[in-house]
Amino acid sequence: MTTEHATSVRSPRRERTRERLLDAAFTVFADAGVQTTSIEAVCEAAGFTRGAFYSNFASKEELFHALFERKAREHLQALEDLTASIDADAVATPEGFRDTVRRVLSSFELDEPAHRHWCLMNAEFELLAMRDADAAPEYLATQQRLRAEVGAVLDQLLERFGLRFTVDTAVAVDLLIDAEVAGSRCAVLGAPPEQQSATRLESLVDLLITPR
Amino acid sequence: MTTEHATSVRSPRRERTRERLLDAAFTVFADAGVQTTSIEAVCEAAGFTRGAFYSNFASKEELFHALFERKAREHLQALEDLTASIDADAVATPEGFRDTVRRVLSSFELDEPAHRHWCLMNAEFELLAMRDADAAPEYLATQQRLRAEVGAVLDQLLERFGLRFTVDTAVAVDLLIDAEVAGSRCAVLGAPPEQQSATRLESLVDLLITPR
Repeated sequence: MTTEHATSVRSPRRERTRERLLDAAFTVFADAGVQTTSIEAVCEAAGFTRGAFYSNFASKEELFHALFERKAREHLQALEDLTASIDADAVATPEGFRDTVRRVLSSFELDEPAHRHWCLMNAEFELLAMRDADAAPEYLATQQRLRAEVGAVLDQLLERFGLRFTVDTAVAVDLLIDAEVAGSRCAVLGAPPEQQSATRLESLVDLLITPR
Repeated sequence: MTTEHATSVRSPRRERTRERLLDAAFTVFADAGVQTTSIEAVCEAAGFTRGAFYSNFASKEELFHALFERKAREHLQALEDLTASIDADAVATPEGFRDTVRRVLSSFELDEPAHRHWCLMNAEFELLAMRDADAAPEYLATQQRLRAEVGAVLDQLLERFGLRFTVDTAVAVDLLIDAEVAGSRCAVLGAPPEQQSATRLESLVDLLITPR
């Protein structure tokens, strides 16, 4: 549910408070788990009162959705910056194309320990949404909106280089993100490199992309 | 960790006790969550004492691994029975082959509500293992052993019909199971059919399987 907080224009000071609450929540959620972390713990980590929290977010769930949106925006921006910087020469050879695809995909990976934190938080919110019929629709809607945006960016990129997906863009994006998420979780579990994202994605990209 | 309980030969009575504990655990873990469910709650649901529990399992974690193994064995057996029942005529046409692959993949899906319970329990144990460096190695090892068995069954099936995977079997199995798991979680979240497993798997099977 989007409240007035999420859509209203915010003052710079309020924006900073909101950002600090999001930063603190990211760390404490990842460390201690979302379910067992109280709003008080988030406020304490950020150095704010409960009042400051509730003037920015209606609930812990709304805070998570804001975190998720912020992270997804960062990912999309990085992807757009990266694709804008690629020139046609770089992808003229099969090796060049492969390197470029690897760079594009690795733009979704954060440095440790942020990547680990992000994986844990995602897994926990997925589970919370699966267990809570009230939370599920918004979780799904956010996921689908962001996947659609990733699909639009990738379609544009492929078109620029005379390529296309071999399947529907929506299915391609689902398969790529499923593989990336599963591989990242394997990495958090301490799996060897061949069970992590890069191996899965390399094969998948070869299968999913073809000349127009 | 495998204890003597898991490897010793069990009496029929003890085997029944063990199965009843596993059945009860499956239901209460799925309903209430693994983290918040006590061993006492599992014993109560099964109608046994704590003593009966500890003569079968060293810990809640060991109980989960036994549940996971049992479910995976059922899946593998269903897959083997199904592949043994397929004759060459059934896959001689593209339509026949597609139908057969769909039947093979749908053998992994349980009836509701068991499928939903299974998805929830899997998601929770994945998260617990991601958060617990002591639990992660066994979780990963179990996953990998079962994926290797699925790979061996699929390789045999493909060979019988003059087909092969377009990528390494291990990668193909990872991609298929990632897509199946992600699609099943979307189903639990209430996603529309095009975001569930069947759509992902249909595209993936076409990409992953080719004549020898």
